[in-house]
Amino acid sequence: MEETRESRRIRLAHGSGGKLMHQLISDLFRKKFHNEILDRLSDSAVIPDFAETGSDLCFTTDSYVVDPLFFPGGDIGKLAVCGTVNDLAVEGAVPLYLTCGMILEEGLELEILERVTDSMAKTAKEAGVKIVAGDLKVVERGKADRIFINTAGVGSREKRGWENRKIAPGDKILVNGPIGEHGVAVMAARGNFELEMDVKSDCAALFPLVREIVKVSGNVKFMRDPTRGGLATTLNELTAGASFGIEIVEEEVPLTEPTRAACEILGFDPFFMANEGKVIIVAAKEDAGKILEAMRVHPLGKDSRIIGEVTEKPAGKVILKTAIGGRRILDMLVGEQLPRIC
Amino acid sequence: MEETRESRRIRLAHGSGGKLMHQLISDLFRKKFHNEILDRLSDSAVIPDFAETGSDLCFTTDSYVVDPLFFPGGDIGKLAVCGTVNDLAVEGAVPLYLTCGMILEEGLELEILERVTDSMAKTAKEAGVKIVAGDLKVVERGKADRIFINTAGVGSREKRGWENRKIAPGDKILVNGPIGEHGVAVMAARGNFELEMDVKSDCAALFPLVREIVKVSGNVKFMRDPTRGGLATTLNELTAGASFGIEIVEEEVPLTEPTRAACEILGFDPFFMANEGKVIIVAAKEDAGKILEAMRVHPLGKDSRIIGEVTEKPAGKVILKTAIGGRRILDMLVGEQLPRIC
Repeated sequence: MEETRESRRIRLAHGSGGKLMHQLISDLFRKKFHNEILDRLSDSAVIPDFAETGSDLCFTTDSYVVDPLFFPGGDIGKLAVCGTVNDLAVEGAVPLYLTCGMILEEGLELEILERVTDSMAKTAKEAGVKIVAGDLKVVERGKADRIFINTAGVGSREKRGWENRKIAPGDKILVNGPIGEHGVAVMAARGNFELEMDVKSDCAALFPLVREIVKVSGNVKFMRDPTRGGLATTLNELTAGASFGIEIVEEEVPLTEPTRAACEILGFDPFFMANEGKVIIVAAKEDAGKILEAMRVHPLGKDSRIIGEVTEKPAGKVILKTAIGGRRILDMLVGEQLPRIC
Repeated sequence: MEETRESRRIRLAHGSGGKLMHQLISDLFRKKFHNEILDRLSDSAVIPDFAETGSDLCFTTDSYVVDPLFFPGGDIGKLAVCGTVNDLAVEGAVPLYLTCGMILEEGLELEILERVTDSMAKTAKEAGVKIVAGDLKVVERGKADRIFINTAGVGSREKRGWENRKIAPGDKILVNGPIGEHGVAVMAARGNFELEMDVKSDCAALFPLVREIVKVSGNVKFMRDPTRGGLATTLNELTAGASFGIEIVEEEVPLTEPTRAACEILGFDPFFMANEGKVIIVAAKEDAGKILEAMRVHPLGKDSRIIGEVTEKPAGKVILKTAIGGRRILDMLVGEQLPRIC
């Protein structure tokens, strides 16, 4: 009985981007809210030919509950802008407008709110988006944790992006730099560890990089930013139920020495650590070289690498070719590894 | 010193829709996020000629933290859909798509989440909108209060709505039915009072009513749903800094006997009590009659009334002509009357 009752409650793991979350989303939200746009299950909704305008509208939302509010390389405000504009950018949209809904805890120092708001304003300006509407709620002391922010974003894109190009064996997988930095920076900033860790969050708005990629190639087939759940989870989302697999070469995956060391000490796997300024690209083999070149020229992509490829078998799985020559299945994040990472 | 430190902290009143909230919004958010769209300060952002499509995009957001989650006439899920589609409808837009961001507290019973999600799905269907994207975060026990929901919404409208029609003395003020019911229903549902109160929230999606109004008149000049802060606050938002005033005739303002009695017992003023299914309309005098007629035919408007008019003086003020023949200034909500009412 006890177990049954507990299994009918929300756990932290439901929010950590891994298996339990995907399950809840498909068992509950997808079923109840069912419609053809939601069913695509991408980072951002795509509304084709919005209001008969001939243009696709991309529309997305994320709430931010990161703890702590400030961490090396960013803060909740910067995150709340970057995270949402990135969801638009990886769908091929030009991010244009954001809304901002804040839930504040009674007693919050105004100075903190000001710093967060400054950071949002600065990041929005840099990303070329306008915050056009907002909402403010305050709850009693102890009923929230200082600041929660929701941003929703809209962007437009020309019709027929890469969503109809079929991913096929031989396609290359690229990433624009070292993985795991956001997750490590936030965990380290919690101060539960004795060690000083010199890792900064990679938090950044990716649209300028995405624009360069799309300029040089008409053969991009998929883009996504591997946030909660990390690289492994995003790749698993892509292969889930697919007729193809993915093989990643461990040695090719960019990883800095501080991140590697921090993960070892903390007992985390960098493949599951969150990123907030990374994009995974799947592109036709023949264009991978020129995409890589274009990415490397851009500051957000100077450490870009081809990290693997789409394979015929095993369908639906992500395989990691390890440094010592072995192969193992790289599964989705399971369990409560990292609550409140974004 | 103590007072200074306290005045630099967020208070519950910052979220209750009244003076403190307006001050914070104009001192902080409007300054930092400044742009021509945000500056309009309406319930929903209007992006003229969105992405050169020739059509206006309306875009809005609200977070919902109502306590309790379920109350007579509604629940947080119904509220989260109605509140946001109403913000679009009163801007003259056809509400089309919503996003849904949920912040859940660890330990929440799945059954509650299911009931809320069911309610959102049902309300969205009735309101003719699709929930197209979502996000889920979970925070530790004691770091949120069961469920917080953010919805953002987009809608489209034809160019040139009523936003350019100038409000002028003689214009009539209309409302579609009795005020204060949402506020009273939620307060009563908190169970802090000995009395049974037979008041249901008026929570409803207003678009079908708004559509009928716009059909019969090209002379609507302003619409807004008087939610947090109630009728008095919305009217004060309208007159703030304006060259006109507003006079409301107390006896004409619809108010049911149970709401009146509950307000008397609870010590609240119905003019400041929240509504979630009411709309205030300002329209040219000559069209007020036919608008009223059209409203009364609709189930959401059967108790509609003309409650007052726009006056020349005193500019910037809302005057209440009381039942006993006096006149008093009806100011904006001050203080912490009703936290977490929506």
